Amino acid sequence: MSALPSAAHDVPRARFRPPAVPQVEVRGFWGARVDAVADKTADILYQRCVEAGMLDQIDPDRPVPALRIPFHPNGTVTMQMFWDSDLGKTIETAAYCVYRKPNPALEAKIDAVIDMFEKLQQEDGYLSSWYQRMEPGKRWTNLRDCHELYCAGHLIEGAVAYYQATGKRKLLDVMSRYADHIGTVFGPNPGQRKGYCGHEELELALVKLARVTGNHKYMDLAKYMVDQRGQQPHYFDEEAKARGADPSEYHFKNYEYNQAHKPVREQDKVVGHAVRAMYLYAGMADVATEYGDDDLRKALDRLWDDLNSKRLYVTGGLGPSADNEGFTSDYDLPNETAYAETCAAVGLAFWANRMLGMGPNTRYADAMELALYNGSISGLSLDGSLFFYENPLESRGGHNRWTWHRCPCCPPNIGRMVASIGTYMYGQAEGEVAVHLYCDSTATLDIGSAEVKLTQNTRYPWDGAIGITVDVDKPTRFALNLRIPAWCRKATLSVNGAPVDLKDVTEDGYARIEREWKAGDAVQLDLDLTVEQLHAHPEVRQDVGRVTLKRGPLVYCLEGIDNPLSLNRIRVPAASSFTANFEPGLLEGVVTLAAEAEADATSDWNGDLYRTAPPQTETVPIKAVPYYAWDNREPGEMLVWLRGG
Amino acid sequence: MSALPSAAHDVPRARFRPPAVPQVEVRGFWGARVDAVADKTADILYQRCVEAGMLDQIDPDRPVPALRIPFHPNGTVTMQMFWDSDLGKTIETAAYCVYRKPNPALEAKIDAVIDMFEKLQQEDGYLSSWYQRMEPGKRWTNLRDCHELYCAGHLIEGAVAYYQATGKRKLLDVMSRYADHIGTVFGPNPGQRKGYCGHEELELALVKLARVTGNHKYMDLAKYMVDQRGQQPHYFDEEAKARGADPSEYHFKNYEYNQAHKPVREQDKVVGHAVRAMYLYAGMADVATEYGDDDLRKALDRLWDDLNSKRLYVTGGLGPSADNEGFTSDYDLPNETAYAETCAAVGLAFWANRMLGMGPNTRYADAMELALYNGSISGLSLDGSLFFYENPLESRGGHNRWTWHRCPCCPPNIGRMVASIGTYMYGQAEGEVAVHLYCDSTATLDIGSAEVKLTQNTRYPWDGAIGITVDVDKPTRFALNLRIPAWCRKATLSVNGAPVDLKDVTEDGYARIEREWKAGDAVQLDLDLTVEQLHAHPEVRQDVGRVTLKRGPLVYCLEGIDNPLSLNRIRVPAASSFTANFEPGLLEGVVTLAAEAEADATSDWNGDLYRTAPPQTETVPIKAVPYYAWDNREPGEMLVWLRGG
Repeated sequence: MSALPSAAHDVPRARFRPPAVPQVEVRGFWGARVDAVADKTADILYQRCVEAGMLDQIDPDRPVPALRIPFHPNGTVTMQMFWDSDLGKTIETAAYCVYRKPNPALEAKIDAVIDMFEKLQQEDGYLSSWYQRMEPGKRWTNLRDCHELYCAGHLIEGAVAYYQATGKRKLLDVMSRYADHIGTVFGPNPGQRKGYCGHEELELALVKLARVTGNHKYMDLAKYMVDQRGQQPHYFDEEAKARGADPSEYHFKNYEYNQAHKPVREQDKVVGHAVRAMYLYAGMADVATEYGDDDLRKALDRLWDDLNSKRLYVTGGLGPSADNEGFTSDYDLPNETAYAETCAAVGLAFWANRMLGMGPNTRYADAMELALYNGSISGLSLDGSLFFYENPLESRGGHNRWTWHRCPCCPPNIGRMVASIGTYMYGQAEGEVAVHLYCDSTATLDIGSAEVKLTQNTRYPWDGAIGITVDVDKPTRFALNLRIPAWCRKATLSVNGAPVDLKDVTEDGYARIEREWKAGDAVQLDLDLTVEQLHAHPEVRQDVGRVTLKRGPLVYCLEGIDNPLSLNRIRVPAASSFTANFEPGLLEGVVTLAAEAEADATSDWNGDLYRTAPPQTETVPIKAVPYYAWDNREPGEMLVWLRGG
Repeated sequence: MSALPSAAHDVPRARFRPPAVPQVEVRGFWGARVDAVADKTADILYQRCVEAGMLDQIDPDRPVPALRIPFHPNGTVTMQMFWDSDLGKTIETAAYCVYRKPNPALEAKIDAVIDMFEKLQQEDGYLSSWYQRMEPGKRWTNLRDCHELYCAGHLIEGAVAYYQATGKRKLLDVMSRYADHIGTVFGPNPGQRKGYCGHEELELALVKLARVTGNHKYMDLAKYMVDQRGQQPHYFDEEAKARGADPSEYHFKNYEYNQAHKPVREQDKVVGHAVRAMYLYAGMADVATEYGDDDLRKALDRLWDDLNSKRLYVTGGLGPSADNEGFTSDYDLPNETAYAETCAAVGLAFWANRMLGMGPNTRYADAMELALYNGSISGLSLDGSLFFYENPLESRGGHNRWTWHRCPCCPPNIGRMVASIGTYMYGQAEGEVAVHLYCDSTATLDIGSAEVKLTQNTRYPWDGAIGITVDVDKPTRFALNLRIPAWCRKATLSVNGAPVDLKDVTEDGYARIEREWKAGDAVQLDLDLTVEQLHAHPEVRQDVGRVTLKRGPLVYCLEGIDNPLSLNRIRVPAASSFTANFEPGLLEGVVTLAAEAEADATSDWNGDLYRTAPPQTETVPIKAVPYYAWDNREPGEMLVWLRGG
């Protein structure tokens, strides 16, 4: 990967908003992923998550369950204070899926859940199955730990998606009322609480709610919560004292864990719980875009640089430690013990996508693409039925996909991300469209004055040839921004067969073609997908002397099933020549990489464990598969960082 | 290290017994270590271990303490069922130390503890502070988990040592009575229990007791417990059922944890808890020696091969996993997370030393020397005041020596091992002496017909020149067996100035000079101490492409304090030339190794975390110190396996 493109402009070119799910018809690579979610995951989320235990908590017509159902190894659920959030994500996933593939049975079940929430909602708008049924009387007493506003945020996201996908607005109305209530409780005015959630999420949800309802007060509330975070006197201190607790006894020692250690505009290190961090930065990016807030944008760019230059796995995974589910120290990126939670890579896609709201810039789109194609969808089996919580970059064979998790945040998160993939592909602004991701698809985009229909015809990421045809009702002047990824060493572009010199038109990694476009105009973009050997910064102690194979957006790994020897015995010489082969029958169709490599021989060790003579080497064929597709066959070793040099 | 020497002879040449501590006056390298233990550790063991809490449990004149004293971070003790064992080891250490350096205050305290044990002992001989005072009525109900016989073993070892060092036999008599009682409870006869301890130790202790008392029944009891281990019906199953427990609910799933999964003669993999394994094999080796038991010896050699060819750290550390404090799978030797408990390396020294009972063979002595000079004494700070429980081979700076541990097994174990180091140096048999270790020292050895005094004059391990002078009352025929370590590429030997061709006289790695020796005969042995780069078997995934520096018996490491850059950035080219420099002012005087190496440069990365261009390299000087001496200065990074090639 070459040096990072320069930071974004101080003044945004335009404010880009993502399209809604119904605006993009996804085919090709991502179409297959969305279908797996629509065919399997969406129903699984309802069955394993909602039906298996949550309904007891949320349905006001059922008896209140015991406060804790002890976790049983073979069971799927415990009582959790954050159930509402998983319901919100389940509803959101279902929304996108029933839009793609009608599923009346699932839709009816979701409608029933929505009815429960409507019934549960209190007169004043408050809505929390935990605080209404499990711990009544304690609302708003522990924002730091108890996910109360976080749950509201996920239900809001679910409501917006369900409305956009089905046209049904019951949950949207319920959640608008709840947001109205939150807006009366929290804010800068006398008598209002100066609080915000320990687990960020509400901020970005309120932006979505504002955009879909057109009600700017939700945006202002999002901005208030962003700005209030980390201010002194510290809300979490005051709140702890109010409930008789000693703030200094906080389990995570300081508020870096939830990014509330100082005001967000002063932050410059990505710290704490990785998912919380990504959700916060996503909300901050929305606020920066909507308010044209350059100070906030500068803080975001500092955080972006910190993550991308010191704390991001090559897969787009992040947060190496299980202890805090988050960040540790610079360059600390262990491979086998990587936590790299699926939700955190999903969160990076959220953040990166929202950084693109301030204008096309491939530094954000590259990271978004990296997270989407690698460290996030690695968390979902190809058939949509099994999950990873952690996404290590090395395994001895014992890290395998599970049916469910007692903290079921990842399955609905990866489900909703995949099912809404179209919203990551394009950006739309006044007189502008941007193509952030290449994938066989058709998008109907709103450029203010008109609608623009773009059809991509491509086998990307297996092939770098991308044809785009434009459809407009009448000739329309607008700028088409086409991403030229920073990883691409050679790209060529033509419009209606006429070559375009990319040097002349490319800024921040996007080729900008502004002209009067007519229906049928054809753009051809060819991205070179040479296999690269990536090296890590020498301070990444676990990766020294090692290389990762990457082709286009895809990070590759070796799996034991394809390479029947201990994977660390293999060494990839610098001069290795890789052939890329599309194998239609393998892993639902992938390009594999093959080469001759060297392996340390074991045959002449004669029972020695240590010796002075260096190992002899032998030539072995190796075959690499895309990282996202690992552990979809029989369990075995896996390795991303191969010995190189 | 060259290929392992061949396995021991089927028929032992002689049965060698180690000398007692008073037989060897230790100077030089080990003399300084023993002095540190005598000056500091012995008193610390009493203060931090015994005085700080144990007396409440063992002193029958005090009130019985509460069953559990919750562990406090700043406290030093909890109640433990295995307190008696730590007392036994503390007494043993004190015995050796007061012999070396009179310490009347400590001796008086130990005498007082012995008085308590005498007073505590029951009429029938039974003696367990736990079962008499903390859980009365439950004796002999859970041998599997509760360390009851293990405690007896350590008190026996303490009793033997205290008798040998001070001539006081009160504790020896107490423990003989207890051993007599155990011999009535356990055994093959009707009405006797067919049991043995879940934590092996009593076996080797009974052998010591038999040797010092001349009472062979203790030896027979040791042999019974060795032979009975793992037999069906399984004692631990029966015992669990008898106390109403379900054997299948055993925490460690199967009896590999305590090496009771099958009869010991059928075992061929070193498994389970590493310390338990070493203690068992040590006891087996004693029994094999004493009974000339070739079947047992063959089993031991299978286990020895398994450990030494697949499961031993290059430092002589063993047992990589904290979960079972023991072994995992073949070639699984992670460096940073290595458990490699100090006690386990001490246990390997025990085992190896006892394998030498069957006759000199450097395959055992090499491993003993490795464990003694590296993975065991790494557990004790140079001044004898601080300890390691785990001995990793890599640290980011956060693994530092502690004052005490809630499970204080390691401090007295390393204390007693160091303080009795003379017993590892020599072997004595009818008409034979063996020099297993080279160290400035004087030994008075019993060859049956006569006493032989050997004086070593050497700076080993800093220098390979070893002069040995013989002193006998009158000219005496005996064989002097001198170890030629397998790691030594070039050794020369002369007797009274006349060269001896080692090829002619060396068998199993020992040069055997049988002649009539006269007082003043002088032997000169020169061992080449070239710095070697060791490679690990390619299946050791954490060590591929890496090398360890070794000079003579000493494994080296880099420390951050000497090498101010991230240690994994350093690469040691195969052709590197190392200079060995004795630095008298460093770490109490050590030979350091210096060379020019290469380091991956960071200056041209420009904020990139990953890139396609390989890192540039720069030349850096490196300095390595002996592994045993690490973390005796300011905390920092440490690395044993350096990038090589």
